[in-house]
Amino acid sequence: MFDRVWLNAHLATMQGTDLGLVEDGAIAAKDGRIAWLGPRAALPAGGIETTDCGGAWILPGLIDCHTHLVFGGDRADEFERRLAGEDYQAILKEGGGILSTVRATRAAGEEELLAVALPRAEALMAEGVTTIEIKSGYGLEQEAELRQLRAARRLAEALPVVVRTTLLAAHAVPPEFAGRRAEYARLVAEAMVPAAQGLADAVDIFHDPLAFDSEDARLVIGAARRAGLPVKLHGDQHGDMGSAALGAECGALSVDHLEHANAAGLTAMGRAGTVAVLLPGATLFLRETRIPDIGAMRAAGVRMAVSTDMNPGSSPALSLLLMLNLACTLYRLTVTEALRGATVEAAAALGLDDRGRLAPGLRCDLALYRIARPAELCYWMGRNPCIGRVLEGR
Amino acid sequence: MFDRVWLNAHLATMQGTDLGLVEDGAIAAKDGRIAWLGPRAALPAGGIETTDCGGAWILPGLIDCHTHLVFGGDRADEFERRLAGEDYQAILKEGGGILSTVRATRAAGEEELLAVALPRAEALMAEGVTTIEIKSGYGLEQEAELRQLRAARRLAEALPVVVRTTLLAAHAVPPEFAGRRAEYARLVAEAMVPAAQGLADAVDIFHDPLAFDSEDARLVIGAARRAGLPVKLHGDQHGDMGSAALGAECGALSVDHLEHANAAGLTAMGRAGTVAVLLPGATLFLRETRIPDIGAMRAAGVRMAVSTDMNPGSSPALSLLLMLNLACTLYRLTVTEALRGATVEAAAALGLDDRGRLAPGLRCDLALYRIARPAELCYWMGRNPCIGRVLEGR
Ligand SMILES: [Zn+2]
Ligand SMILES: [Zn+2]
Repeated sequence: MFDRVWLNAHLATMQGTDLGLVEDGAIAAKDGRIAWLGPRAALPAGGIETTDCGGAWILPGLIDCHTHLVFGGDRADEFERRLAGEDYQAILKEGGGILSTVRATRAAGEEELLAVALPRAEALMAEGVTTIEIKSGYGLEQEAELRQLRAARRLAEALPVVVRTTLLAAHAVPPEFAGRRAEYARLVAEAMVPAAQGLADAVDIFHDPLAFDSEDARLVIGAARRAGLPVKLHGDQHGDMGSAALGAECGALSVDHLEHANAAGLTAMGRAGTVAVLLPGATLFLRETRIPDIGAMRAAGVRMAVSTDMNPGSSPALSLLLMLNLACTLYRLTVTEALRGATVEAAAALGLDDRGRLAPGLRCDLALYRIARPAELCYWMGRNPCIGRVLEGR
Repeated sequence: MFDRVWLNAHLATMQGTDLGLVEDGAIAAKDGRIAWLGPRAALPAGGIETTDCGGAWILPGLIDCHTHLVFGGDRADEFERRLAGEDYQAILKEGGGILSTVRATRAAGEEELLAVALPRAEALMAEGVTTIEIKSGYGLEQEAELRQLRAARRLAEALPVVVRTTLLAAHAVPPEFAGRRAEYARLVAEAMVPAAQGLADAVDIFHDPLAFDSEDARLVIGAARRAGLPVKLHGDQHGDMGSAALGAECGALSVDHLEHANAAGLTAMGRAGTVAVLLPGATLFLRETRIPDIGAMRAAGVRMAVSTDMNPGSSPALSLLLMLNLACTLYRLTVTEALRGATVEAAAALGLDDRGRLAPGLRCDLALYRIARPAELCYWMGRNPCIGRVLEGR
């Protein structure tokens, strides 16, 4: 009847608006989907394979919905030099900062990009992550952008994980286009977005005082629409760009960061169902004192996801559970908000409604934890209690 | 000639005042001690067992010199309730806070304390920790304090790790002594410190506006001296208590926290060689804005160690590498300071001069990492690149 049954487990289903707890529960898979779940006592008979979970907690497989996981090099040297007192402007002049990552990424072949990304993905997976979004954005030229996306897709062939790819060619202005930002944005819209069809699941734009303005963004958004690709924004991070309102207006899946979002924009996001992706790792790593206005988001009914923003420059974070702790500690999210932020809301930020919750018919992607209560997943700093991961019932 | 040789490795020996790097090096053990180290090309022939490290980095086994690892219960429920908006005073009135940990610890037998501490110690060890200091302080009555110390010692029988125990009976005033703090301090000094001889390697006192004053501290310090035990202080955390000066004056191994230490006290610590143990996990978890004055410590030549402060109330941290990241990010330690802080300076904070560096004659406690440079150990957030651990050459 069932392919596989897990019992003697507690479930946090994320059904409804809270954690949707089922204590002393069981869950069953058939053909990669959840076929049944509920109290163990009500479990129908029949299952080819049965796993006794020994009282573990089962959550939907975690979803890291905003990463820049595929890149060449790292910036540990720059981190060290800045702490040793070297001037950042001097480091930048020598080709440091994001351009050093662009150089290393352009120089790397697809195989090399895959090889360096593998252990990063494995680190996330070890905590129970089953779906990872991966952005390009360190190529900044067509072939290198597409190479990043291909390497990202190949991760999902090499590892038991789902990868969702996002073209972020509008991440920074490449050195060849210095002083010609709008021209580069046109190139992204006219050439790169069409070329990424079939390789990218979405298009993202860094809409920020440090990067692209609203006109650039609208160009790229229009191209995404023509290519049939949903849009995401890096928005309102270093200043109020109106990203929240723009994201809501253009039907973006998510606007991410939002440290400087204005109230009207958040209200629009709440109405449109646009997800706010919170990235507290960057807050910590950059020692930002300005944090997203969680109270305003709650008041506006904005859906909130939590992610690592895994990237070499502002959030070299390889633990989604640590991000849950930071979301609680730094942003004062509740445990329920944080855990939903890495499951059901993260799925929404990717436009996926077949995962992120435990319910019959959804993908049977599970994460098993040796904990006494779900709050422990947010409470501990640097502890990984994951004891199992299931992808499509396997 | 040698029992075991590791080659094709880079060494960060911590010799001298920096990281003491030996690239393309080798290290050899004999009878549990380091017998030789240097450039691989100079390695003398002869070794029963040879390990090719494949270009990994070898550091002295990490030392977590300040933990409260042995305790009953956890405070994940309290964490969740506070985030959900419950009033902390109300939680305290219901028996929350440290007293809930005291209750759970008193109720637990030695076996149970050992069982819950085991996975915590294993989490630290998985990152390359080879020596862990563990404090009592959740018993607050003689038998329960000694039980914590016995459980801590038994960890070292169950696992390949060195445990150093510290009696922290003067951690808080137990409920039975409410309003009679000085009386409890006398009990600690007159009964508990003598009773801990043979079970404790040091004595610690929470010298703080929220806990014990200088008179109490001097009583306990005197008792420690009579028992032949070195002293450590939790000092100047929530206010300037003169802990730094007191620690220097009484020859304490370390004063830990020091957020509010005054300049004269730090100068005295520098002169006395008293180690400052920095605990950035508590800064993050408590969202403290006041941090230790690292500049003043440098100017005064104070030795700085870094530790987890692993405890259920203010730093539920099970990653020493994450603390290195926080020490750099939040306290602006250099990479060299952070890495020395978890090795050679942490050894000094425990009064141990047989470890924390790689040099002939010292214990062969090693940590092996798959990294391109030591800075990566501080740079990544929530990544564990440890690929091997060696305790006394094994
Ligand atoms: Zn990002
Ligand atoms: Zn402590």
